Amino acid sequence: MSERPSTPLLDTVNEPPQLRKLDKAQLRQLSDELRAEMIDAVGSTGGHLGSGLGVVELTVAIHYVFNTPDDRLIWDVGHQAYPHKILTGRRDRIRTLRQGGGLSGFTKRSESEYDPFGAAHSSTSISAGVGFAVANKLNSQPGKAIAVIGDGAMSAGMAYEAMNNAEQAGNRLVVILNDNDMSIAPPVGGLSAYLARMVSSSEYLGLRSLASRFAKKLSGKVHSGLEKAEEYTRGMVTGGTLFEELGFYYVGPIDGHNLDHLVPVLENVRDSGQGPVLVHVVTKKGKGYEPAESSADKYHGVAKFDVITGKQKKSSGGPPNYQNVFGETLAKLAETDKRICAITAAMPSGTGVDKFAQAHPDRAFDVGIAEQHGVTFAAGLAAQGMRPFAAIYSTFLQRAYDQVVHDVAIQNLPVRFAIDRAGLVGADGATHAGSFDVTYLATLPNFVVMAAADEAELVHMTYTAAEYDDGPIAFRYPRGAGTGVAMPDTPQKLEIGKGRIIREGKKVAILSLGTRLAEAEKAADDLEAKGLSTTVADMRFAKPLDTELIERLMRSHEIVLTIEEAAIGGLGAHVLTYASDNGLTDNGLKVRTMRLPDMFQDHDAPEKQYDEAGLNAPQIVETVLTALRHNSAGVEEARA
Amino acid sequence: MSERPSTPLLDTVNEPPQLRKLDKAQLRQLSDELRAEMIDAVGSTGGHLGSGLGVVELTVAIHYVFNTPDDRLIWDVGHQAYPHKILTGRRDRIRTLRQGGGLSGFTKRSESEYDPFGAAHSSTSISAGVGFAVANKLNSQPGKAIAVIGDGAMSAGMAYEAMNNAEQAGNRLVVILNDNDMSIAPPVGGLSAYLARMVSSSEYLGLRSLASRFAKKLSGKVHSGLEKAEEYTRGMVTGGTLFEELGFYYVGPIDGHNLDHLVPVLENVRDSGQGPVLVHVVTKKGKGYEPAESSADKYHGVAKFDVITGKQKKSSGGPPNYQNVFGETLAKLAETDKRICAITAAMPSGTGVDKFAQAHPDRAFDVGIAEQHGVTFAAGLAAQGMRPFAAIYSTFLQRAYDQVVHDVAIQNLPVRFAIDRAGLVGADGATHAGSFDVTYLATLPNFVVMAAADEAELVHMTYTAAEYDDGPIAFRYPRGAGTGVAMPDTPQKLEIGKGRIIREGKKVAILSLGTRLAEAEKAADDLEAKGLSTTVADMRFAKPLDTELIERLMRSHEIVLTIEEAAIGGLGAHVLTYASDNGLTDNGLKVRTMRLPDMFQDHDAPEKQYDEAGLNAPQIVETVLTALRHNSAGVEEARA
Repeated sequence: MSERPSTPLLDTVNEPPQLRKLDKAQLRQLSDELRAEMIDAVGSTGGHLGSGLGVVELTVAIHYVFNTPDDRLIWDVGHQAYPHKILTGRRDRIRTLRQGGGLSGFTKRSESEYDPFGAAHSSTSISAGVGFAVANKLNSQPGKAIAVIGDGAMSAGMAYEAMNNAEQAGNRLVVILNDNDMSIAPPVGGLSAYLARMVSSSEYLGLRSLASRFAKKLSGKVHSGLEKAEEYTRGMVTGGTLFEELGFYYVGPIDGHNLDHLVPVLENVRDSGQGPVLVHVVTKKGKGYEPAESSADKYHGVAKFDVITGKQKKSSGGPPNYQNVFGETLAKLAETDKRICAITAAMPSGTGVDKFAQAHPDRAFDVGIAEQHGVTFAAGLAAQGMRPFAAIYSTFLQRAYDQVVHDVAIQNLPVRFAIDRAGLVGADGATHAGSFDVTYLATLPNFVVMAAADEAELVHMTYTAAEYDDGPIAFRYPRGAGTGVAMPDTPQKLEIGKGRIIREGKKVAILSLGTRLAEAEKAADDLEAKGLSTTVADMRFAKPLDTELIERLMRSHEIVLTIEEAAIGGLGAHVLTYASDNGLTDNGLKVRTMRLPDMFQDHDAPEKQYDEAGLNAPQIVETVLTALRHNSAGVEEARA
Repeated sequence: MSERPSTPLLDTVNEPPQLRKLDKAQLRQLSDELRAEMIDAVGSTGGHLGSGLGVVELTVAIHYVFNTPDDRLIWDVGHQAYPHKILTGRRDRIRTLRQGGGLSGFTKRSESEYDPFGAAHSSTSISAGVGFAVANKLNSQPGKAIAVIGDGAMSAGMAYEAMNNAEQAGNRLVVILNDNDMSIAPPVGGLSAYLARMVSSSEYLGLRSLASRFAKKLSGKVHSGLEKAEEYTRGMVTGGTLFEELGFYYVGPIDGHNLDHLVPVLENVRDSGQGPVLVHVVTKKGKGYEPAESSADKYHGVAKFDVITGKQKKSSGGPPNYQNVFGETLAKLAETDKRICAITAAMPSGTGVDKFAQAHPDRAFDVGIAEQHGVTFAAGLAAQGMRPFAAIYSTFLQRAYDQVVHDVAIQNLPVRFAIDRAGLVGADGATHAGSFDVTYLATLPNFVVMAAADEAELVHMTYTAAEYDDGPIAFRYPRGAGTGVAMPDTPQKLEIGKGRIIREGKKVAILSLGTRLAEAEKAADDLEAKGLSTTVADMRFAKPLDTELIERLMRSHEIVLTIEEAAIGGLGAHVLTYASDNGLTDNGLKVRTMRLPDMFQDHDAPEKQYDEAGLNAPQIVETVLTALRHNSAGVEEARA
């Protein structure tokens, strides 16, 4: 741990009102101290580094110019908000970032009045900002909304929908486009190319030309549609027509690290009667920290690191990460199967699609932050005979739910869904947890839904999905490292809708879906030690259910327990529904279900999250024991 | 019924290859006959009329110029595809449109090889087209993809995501923007204003200027980014920069009813090596049928009508439609509660928000086809103290599932969801059925999920939602007319998580959620007549469950049956999970669940759909009787 940096000016600023009392000339020093403090803090906690470093000056300038928190500042995604947290009364907890009980790695309403709208998924800020602005307008209250959104986030359809609806917010809405040409991976697509053209074809505007543009553009007269149209065709506008066509006043591009430009521009925007305004700010991800600036991913998300050297304290060795197992398996399968394609939505390394792309660049597609397009694009590929794998985190697949239903399930197209980050995710917290996919997919006709119990199972499921052409098929697997099982030499094609018995007993049957299997086995050991003969089954499929196995186990055991790392509506619900409707529980069979609790769990160490969720071996044992005791005391008495 | 129109030329064309043998000069006559045939057919079936009339010439021109079905023609939404169906071997069944067993009202893969990608929800066509194009490119196969998309559908984020990713499809992708300035309601937002400016600021281009534009734009040389940028700033391009900025070659606007323009333009596009191309075609919804052209909604969706007069054979009288009950109730509540707002996504009349908008225009928001923005906009309004109602069809709310989870549920913001078209929807079929909302919402922490059993209940639930500020709350109700119950003078605030007993019995308990209540009551009558004393409860809430009521009924009845118009994972799953985990079923209680079947049900008359689903009174009775018989024969024997 290095010594804390010296921050004499920052020490005097706990909240924005103090910041706003500073002289403009002091903002440079404040920014430098803020940057140093942030590097030091993230060095000790790990987390998102590059994004925050890129917006240090922007953060200072916004809080200096706008009247936060009454003016509503909304950071899109929120992982760039560490400097914002330091400046808004949370500096004393900044070294608890992403730790259990500590500050969230994103913005969060419950954390501060300076976080009026929490975030974590991208591209929501403009919509929320329009909501704030319109509410204030309806109530004749003062207060603007300032949405800060990255160029990567602009590739999502949601941002476009919001821009298309922004005009009604008028001058109460300011959108700051933070253009760093990087979200997590380099961005893709037409918009990105467009922004690059704008930045490359104009030098950053000097203060003087900015002022004259303002005079012209925010002069107080309302441009009529026709005047605007003429403006375009005469080529008077050097950039930003895309945004102007959607109803914005465009300002930029300006240097986002130059406070002498930022502050007066934002002051002009604040005081202008015109709007909505889009300020195009160009920043450098990782700015001011050499190891970050020179890294390919700009230290987007880092482990704890040494501030002097930048060296991250990543653990080495151990079992492979699930995403790498997936990516490498798929790449290998694609060597002999030319129909296999892989699609990622701006998460090439997070999903392991980077591994596939190295081997098969022509069949790897990064669609940007555009899950909706990604899924229907995959459906189109499938309809034309390809074997597409849409590799999307569980939580982000929610973005494409209608496409999953309407374009894939109803048409019964064989799109393969590789669902990463299924279940609890540790430090990223509730917004990134993959809790609902089993429920929202298994309710759909035509769908096959699998969950991998370990990394060897993931190999088999990847292969099984590749070979399955009868309709949509999904397989989920968790964040992080595998369990360390031996890896198979050749992948095995699983029989659809068939589970496997891990150990066979007589009294208690545990039906597990996915990665709680290891805990189920531990619990079985414990139960056996208590004299309770226990069966453990890895169901593999939430849909179709292995009804034969379920019937057999239900008819031969006293208690059946289901366990899964998923919210209500998944395996437990499907097993219960099948069992009830077929009379399997008519005669006094005890069934219990274990699953994620009915709450959004905060970020914490994974093991603590599992404890909170009640999904560890001791809780399995306790559930079984309680159920067995239930006979004599509980319900029976009450009914008598 | 009027006499069939005379269609001598159309009679010779059963499929596009025959069409392509015609002389260009004959296409005008063919179009006129096609239009007459379509008007006559829809007059006898009802359905979507205006949209199809607007694309008669476009349909003829596309099939004339392109090599369908090898060139993949994708109609966005698909409700404009009736002329396409007539020309692609389905004329003999065109008068079965939207009838049980007949043609779908949308495009459908199972119906014809000329429907390579089915549709019904908007804005999917470009993504699918990119998929087709890329698959062909990877396989070095010939074949283009032609996506025809309306200007309203362009307001959805999904279309933007697709455009942003279209460049890789190259000249294999042709997007035809069908600009009729109308989707269902007049479109809203910046894009719409932009298109209007383009159309109004340029006359439609004559053939000659089109040709010269082609020479310039599709000249075979690849524009570099810099050349393109210069082109913009020099103002050489008179329109379409928004699309060009996203990577398209833009052509237009051209008159979509002028075959002398359409055919050569499409031929040029077909033969050009450049792409992707966006052809901006201006059409008139309802074109060529005076009653449609002069109607406000251009006969978007019509009942059967008289071809001569245009008069629709709508039934009159009877109970009010649910959406009107909702809209009027909300409008009334908003008279005294200034915080109430209503949001619709391009469905003002379908959702009843038009009624609200008449009374409170400043608090009604039509965001266009932009459910994602609509939900997060509502979340922003709620975070700033308003009481927003997002009125969205069940099936379309799927488009905003991530926003529901991430922006509303996790933040526990009191957004009210008025979920129309819940359950089966008759003639619109599987793509519009609201089957999954109970499952995908009730699995979310913080959510309250209600279902109205009749239109009086809808009044109470609307009021209950307005008064509930503790978090998100949803209430679902079906398509169509209410049951005819007496309407309350004043709305009643329901206790959250409490059901109501409709009738009290002793042996059988039916727990109903939503509109199957009437059938449950009928079934109860029948069961009583058979000597089986029956309780019927309207649960009102899928979440939170009325656990007190459930426990009481489970402990005092022999069989408990749940029924809902929803897919697996809803009320039945939640009741079973609660009952199992709390030991209520340990002692031989029989539970059965009735719900929508595990299939996508085709369009049909609603009563037939309910029969197919097995959710009518006789099937309830049968389920109960079978369960009661189960004791002696079924499971018990098998277990012994």
